[in-house]
Amino acid sequence: MAIVCVGSIALDTVKTPFGKVREKLGGSATYFSVAASFFAPVSVVAVIGSDLKDAKLAPLKARGIDLRGIERRKGKTFRWSGEYSYDLNVRETIETHLNVFEEFDPVIREELRGFPFVFLGNIDPDLQHRILDQMISPRLVVTDTMNYWISGKRDSLIKLLSRVDILVINDAEARELSGEYNLLASARWIIDRGPQTVIIKKGEHGALMFRGRSFFSAPGFPLDAVFDPTGAGDSFAGGFVGYLAKTEDLSEDNLRRAVIYGSTLASFTVEEFGVDKLLELATDDIEARVRNFRELTHFDL
Amino acid sequence: MAIVCVGSIALDTVKTPFGKVREKLGGSATYFSVAASFFAPVSVVAVIGSDLKDAKLAPLKARGIDLRGIERRKGKTFRWSGEYSYDLNVRETIETHLNVFEEFDPVIREELRGFPFVFLGNIDPDLQHRILDQMISPRLVVTDTMNYWISGKRDSLIKLLSRVDILVINDAEARELSGEYNLLASARWIIDRGPQTVIIKKGEHGALMFRGRSFFSAPGFPLDAVFDPTGAGDSFAGGFVGYLAKTEDLSEDNLRRAVIYGSTLASFTVEEFGVDKLLELATDDIEARVRNFRELTHFDL
Repeated sequence: MAIVCVGSIALDTVKTPFGKVREKLGGSATYFSVAASFFAPVSVVAVIGSDLKDAKLAPLKARGIDLRGIERRKGKTFRWSGEYSYDLNVRETIETHLNVFEEFDPVIREELRGFPFVFLGNIDPDLQHRILDQMISPRLVVTDTMNYWISGKRDSLIKLLSRVDILVINDAEARELSGEYNLLASARWIIDRGPQTVIIKKGEHGALMFRGRSFFSAPGFPLDAVFDPTGAGDSFAGGFVGYLAKTEDLSEDNLRRAVIYGSTLASFTVEEFGVDKLLELATDDIEARVRNFRELTHFDL
Repeated sequence: MAIVCVGSIALDTVKTPFGKVREKLGGSATYFSVAASFFAPVSVVAVIGSDLKDAKLAPLKARGIDLRGIERRKGKTFRWSGEYSYDLNVRETIETHLNVFEEFDPVIREELRGFPFVFLGNIDPDLQHRILDQMISPRLVVTDTMNYWISGKRDSLIKLLSRVDILVINDAEARELSGEYNLLASARWIIDRGPQTVIIKKGEHGALMFRGRSFFSAPGFPLDAVFDPTGAGDSFAGGFVGYLAKTEDLSEDNLRRAVIYGSTLASFTVEEFGVDKLLELATDDIEARVRNFRELTHFDL
């Protein structure tokens, strides 16, 4: 089944203890769509400036991602720069220039409105509402958010929760949103406001999925080298939603598998800058790491 | 099979965001022995001062723990006080008074020297060497350590590694010992110096076990309330070694189960101050939580 992904396309300048890149293609829509494209058709809705060369998007096109929903506006593309210390869970934003992204307010074209799977990347909750207004009874709505909206657009975000099936959020954000330090309490607070399922991402420590009274823990994959954590969360969401769209099965068992597929895509993303590692993956690589995840966590009683 | 545990008995004064206790029975030997006593016979080798009343140790005696190896010396019992902030992974030591523990240098009594399972709690590595010198070909030696010895007795500690089967250590200590930030690299560094198996404890994020090229990840158990993390690591070790001593099986599969039993005992410990929660457990409670751990991590491919 097909996925609509609404999010950002950015040019990222990133410094980590292991290297530096300038104006690398990034943004939530980029990471999500590349990760999801291994599993299902993806249409991207985003905005870029007149400065972003077509060649930059060629790798996405080559993966069969539908880019017709990317609006090109006069002006500059969204730019972000950040730096990670040795503890790669902590990052410092050096600069954020929203540029054309500041006025992003997309009209979803007719043929995408009936798409069954919707992913709303980390954008203004007001915008997330307006996008959902345009969709015709999607089967699954998954959203992300960030601290900026939790503090700045809290009411809109909380209203959004009642329209969302699955919220994907990191641990610090879950705590900030709920006002609860305990992650179990945070998850319950969120679930009480609408989403049937909450996934709390914990960086190198993996992810927790909460559904009603059940919870599932997926570890971070132990890697020899974590090169650049940028995009790990959106790659997780891409693998997760992509796998669900491919399998068309929203049972608890399949959601668990989807979390592992999401974790797998995230674990590849952080091994290189940008989506470089994802672009060189074959389906076999993904399946092999999914089996490694099982080996990593499996025990018999 | 029987276990000898050499470690500290302390009176802990602990403040957490959820409450405070004064001079609560603690120390590595206390947490370890209570946790292990659910699985196998445990003999404790430790030292206490003339101020520690027998009644304080009565709960351990009631659990069948052999306390004859506890030497009572003139002077005061080891006292530690610490405080935890909301992020319970971070603790601040307020005071440490080693008192009689400072001159702890035990002679292991004859009948314990042939015991097959040996746990050396976090004590001076020189002392850990002298204890191993007294043991007669133990089947399994498991040790803990801490940052104080990593910086202060580095050479002795590194020599000790070649005499140890399993090192249990927390993530910050593994990084400090190895000089490697990456946990996989840290574990390899340690394994290259002797232990066949390294378990890296990550507090609320669970534990990783490394053996040769294989690794196993156990999550932290999501709890409604973490009351006091003191003793979680030693309770982990107690459940882990206890389960191995009970089952007498050192295969990879069984070591994985033992990590889950260790994680289970640790998860109970943090629900109350001291060993209070452990003392009220029945075997059924432990088995139920072990099954919950399986439910928490299980997925089918």
